[in-house]
This record gives sequence, C-alpha cells and structure tokens, in this order.
Amino acid sequence: MDLKYDSQGLIPAVAQEASSGDVLMVAWMNRDALRLTQQTGRAHFWSRSRGELWDKGQTSGNVLHVREIFVDCDGDTLLLRVEAEGPACHTGAHSCFFRKLENPDADSAL
Amino acid sequence: MDLKYDSQGLIPAVAQEASSGDVLMVAWMNRDALRLTQQTGRAHFWSRSRGELWDKGQTSGNVLHVREIFVDCDGDTLLLRVEAEGPACHTGAHSCFFRKLENPDADSAL
Repeated sequence: MDLKYDSQGLIPAVAQEASSGDVLMVAWMNRDALRLTQQTGRAHFWSRSRGELWDKGQTSGNVLHVREIFVDCDGDTLLLRVEAEGPACHTGAHSCFFRKLENPDADSAL
Repeated sequence: MDLKYDSQGLIPAVAQEASSGDVLMVAWMNRDALRLTQQTGRAHFWSRSRGELWDKGQTSGNVLHVREIFVDCDGDTLLLRVEAEGPACHTGAHSCFFRKLENPDADSAL
C-alpha cells in the first residue's frame, strides 16, 4: 500500500487505545519509524523538535504496544491501535488531549 | 489558549465519534476553519488539495456536529469529539481508516 509522506518525509500517526477507544496522542513517523514500529510492535516516531528517531517509552517506560495499523482513504494518515504501558503523555496524563478548547463565542455570550 | 499552527498556518484535527469512540478522519484546519467550526458547531477544514475552506458536508450532507474540542499537550493538534450525519469518508465508509496496513515482516514470514 502506497503511503503519502509529506515533503519532509513524514506522515501523522494517531495513537488510539484499543481497549478504551481513547485518542492518546498524535505524532509523526518517517519510513524508518514505521518500519521499526512494525518490526518491534512498539510505537516509534520521528521527533520533529529533536530531529531524531523517537523510540517511545525507551527512557520513560511508557511504551505503546501497537496491535494494528490502519491507513486512511487517501493514504496520508495512520491510525495506530495500541495498548499503553503507563501514561501516553510526557506530562503524566493518560492522553495528551486533556485540555478543552473553550468556544470564544460561548464565552462572550456569558 | 495558544495553538501552534504550522508554517502554512494549519493544524491537524482528529475527528472522533463521541458515541462510539471511532476515529473517523483526520483533516487540517486554519484559523478561519476553527473559527467557523466554533461558530456553527459543524466541522470546517482547510482542504489542502483544493486550497480552500471546506464546509464538511455542505454538498454531501455528511456533516460532523462538533460537541467538544480538545488540544494536545504541546498545542499543535486538535481532537474534535463529533457526532456524524452519515458516513464521514468520501468513499461512503463510516471512517476513513478502513484499510489495514499489513506488517511486511509478518507477510514475509508466511
């Protein structure tokens, strides 16, 4: 299956906890990160901030075990179905999506 | 809350069905798309292929009603909790993630 990497050779990957359905995080993969993920069964990403391969949980122990990988209709996004050891977020939160964006219109109507 | 848009002024948005937990699609928003989403309660995106604002479901009727929006820890990805009218994918599939990526190592071991 042909994947569409962007101009920097990256593709976004959504990590979803298979047991709960929770969306845990979104990170980026290059070809090496995807290959290592498939070979090891543990999520690997490309850290854009550090400019290096990121073996998720290598230091923290907070590994994501990847059960299945899905590709979207146009081949430019991945969905990882995972089981998480510990919190997925570097803040210690279960999911990186723990902040709710308030609606500015709703706020101004108060 | 400060959002980190990329160099093209875009931020990825994961649409997750609130009732089922299914990840339906991932698309991109710019500031206008986010503002319109918050104002109307219907998901708007920026179509990178067409280079224009995308009022999702305007022609197909397959609207995504946005119940909540979450921001990830580093402010560069959005999670939309939605209820979908009809299939989210332009192919008619419930979710855009209907193709499973096979593991090349698993394949070669057959």
